[in-house]
Amino acid sequence: MAGALEERRARAALARLMEPSDWVGLALVAALGPVDALRVATGSMGPGQGLEGELRRVLDREAGGPQSLLGDALQRWAPRVKDLAPERDLATMERLGGRLVIPSDDLWPAALADLELGEPVCLWMRGDVDQGVPALNRNVAMVGSRDSTNYGNSVTGDMAAGLVQRGYCVISGGAYGIDAQAHRSALAAADDADGVTTMAVMACGLDRYYPAGNEDLLRSIAARGIILAEVPPGSAPTRWRFLQRNRLIAALAGVTVVVEARWRSGALNTAHHAAGLGRPVGAVPGSVYSANSAGTHRLLRDGSATCVTEAAEVAELAGPFDATGAPPQQEALADHDGLGVEDLLLLDALPVRQGVSIDKLAPVAGLPARSVLAGLGRLESRGLARQDGFGWRRARRS
Amino acid sequence: MAGALEERRARAALARLMEPSDWVGLALVAALGPVDALRVATGSMGPGQGLEGELRRVLDREAGGPQSLLGDALQRWAPRVKDLAPERDLATMERLGGRLVIPSDDLWPAALADLELGEPVCLWMRGDVDQGVPALNRNVAMVGSRDSTNYGNSVTGDMAAGLVQRGYCVISGGAYGIDAQAHRSALAAADDADGVTTMAVMACGLDRYYPAGNEDLLRSIAARGIILAEVPPGSAPTRWRFLQRNRLIAALAGVTVVVEARWRSGALNTAHHAAGLGRPVGAVPGSVYSANSAGTHRLLRDGSATCVTEAAEVAELAGPFDATGAPPQQEALADHDGLGVEDLLLLDALPVRQGVSIDKLAPVAGLPARSVLAGLGRLESRGLARQDGFGWRRARRS
Repeated sequence: MAGALEERRARAALARLMEPSDWVGLALVAALGPVDALRVATGSMGPGQGLEGELRRVLDREAGGPQSLLGDALQRWAPRVKDLAPERDLATMERLGGRLVIPSDDLWPAALADLELGEPVCLWMRGDVDQGVPALNRNVAMVGSRDSTNYGNSVTGDMAAGLVQRGYCVISGGAYGIDAQAHRSALAAADDADGVTTMAVMACGLDRYYPAGNEDLLRSIAARGIILAEVPPGSAPTRWRFLQRNRLIAALAGVTVVVEARWRSGALNTAHHAAGLGRPVGAVPGSVYSANSAGTHRLLRDGSATCVTEAAEVAELAGPFDATGAPPQQEALADHDGLGVEDLLLLDALPVRQGVSIDKLAPVAGLPARSVLAGLGRLESRGLARQDGFGWRRARRS
Repeated sequence: MAGALEERRARAALARLMEPSDWVGLALVAALGPVDALRVATGSMGPGQGLEGELRRVLDREAGGPQSLLGDALQRWAPRVKDLAPERDLATMERLGGRLVIPSDDLWPAALADLELGEPVCLWMRGDVDQGVPALNRNVAMVGSRDSTNYGNSVTGDMAAGLVQRGYCVISGGAYGIDAQAHRSALAAADDADGVTTMAVMACGLDRYYPAGNEDLLRSIAARGIILAEVPPGSAPTRWRFLQRNRLIAALAGVTVVVEARWRSGALNTAHHAAGLGRPVGAVPGSVYSANSAGTHRLLRDGSATCVTEAAEVAELAGPFDATGAPPQQEALADHDGLGVEDLLLLDALPVRQGVSIDKLAPVAGLPARSVLAGLGRLESRGLARQDGFGWRRARRS
């Protein structure tokens, strides 16, 4: 029988031996458990007759191929066997203030089970890990072009801040452009009380900051949020690992929002992973003349995504939750009781944190300034709106 | 028995007596025919016992109400009876070079039958009427905000021109903003050979140009396209007539595209009419910060509309047609036979009229320039593409 420590060591080693989503390796783990799977994968144990039968069933079912798949896989893994040093990798993570998380740990994100056989063998995490990875319905992925436009950056900033203000955690890939803007805005919008407000899912080992230009940002995320990866310390970001990283983002997030994407874009890959998992996908519209919106319009056009223009609409896709991650209480709904349509629009338009002027509220609410003024009076009398030094903001009946 | 001329006179009179979509009046026409319906509506004939029975069946079925509906309607119509002068209205139209068109005329747009009982009793038309109203699958409605943005105007201009170049007629309401831009661009893109490239559906009588600021434009449409209305000469544009005019636009067009619309907008009314008729609706995306795109995003978000960013995507919604307006023949489809995906994309991207450079084709087709070059070679060898002084354009196998 393998002990808990031995399983941890084995999973750490398997993560280095196999690439993400190596179906043969994952089938081996599913059939034999991680400790024996590692023994077989490293050639220190033959699959054996009984094992072969069981393994073969899994291989036949999951990979659809003949048993020679295992022979191919053993050859693929062989060059890496001599480099296995799980204790060193675990020590590296500890030195970085991080840790290895495996499926039996409390910290393991339950949402990853939706990947079925494609569930990672382990995750490496750094940052505010003790707060835990937020539950699926509190995570929103925001992804998009590396060469984002000012428009895309603005939408990302506003949307990420609005999501954090509503209690969501913003997940992205730590890349330039939309990713960086999403992380940055989520950090800026965070209060001390907010828990983890942003997570970066990396395609490389957590001992490096990639891309280098985002080092400061990634350090901030590692300090105040969570960075995580499926691949062990020392792993370089490869194209395959980027694509597989996208599947993790999609699996960890209750909703994936594509803010900007070219006609062919990695962000669309994330969106398709999300759709494949049955998770809602949002796409932000933009100018028909912007190549960076061609991909989001494509998602809208083919019905893969819902049009989202602001945090409130993303939250609607994500479904409601209260501070504990549970569905909303009856009281929370009572705010809206008895309000007319215009007042509801206005209430939705009011920012939760810092007040804004009536001039800014009117276009957001889609109401003329005069109606906004009258509506604010009604909302104020109900205790739902109040003024601060900047203008009008939402108040909460407590 | 009523003669053809008498029916024409009766329908002209009924158009002045009743507002558009007056269900009781339309039920009366459906039950009695226009001549007797006019007699009953003007009080010169009682509905009679037998007529009452038949009329009542229609009223009960169509208006869902009691027979007192007819009494109410007679009171509603009474003040207008003394003003009826169908000969004068017909003479006015003739003087303007226009005419009255009734359902039994060849010129009557067959598509209006989809309005069922709501089909107008007649249409007043001015312009290039002898060319006829294009068939449903050749008409695209483009509607939107009166206070359109530069962005909305640009998209409208490009899309309308692209639609006319593909053989479509652009329908709109002759208003400021998106409407005017759509008409203007459709006229500018027209060749002599194109037939009717734009139609303006008015909410007022055709003896006036409304709004006044569009007089020059409406004169041009009346000269080179068609302007039409359900209400007779002398009728002022009222809110009710605008809303009913929207239903005509939706019914005449195979596809309705909303380019820009505020959260509450008449253009959305047209879109909902189109959806109610089972006609596809397109919505143009735009900046999430533009109040003029809030309505189109709303249509996208609630699934009422498909995202359209260029003429080719609108044409896809409209479905194919050949030069006669009929569904494509087997030969027309053969153009695509045996083409790979990239060549199909390229074929769709090729303009029909004036050639464009490979640099411009590549983003439209969504292909790298190298693939475009190779694909053009293949299409040219099939006789599907050729070069002109401007670049590459589509060729038709004849």
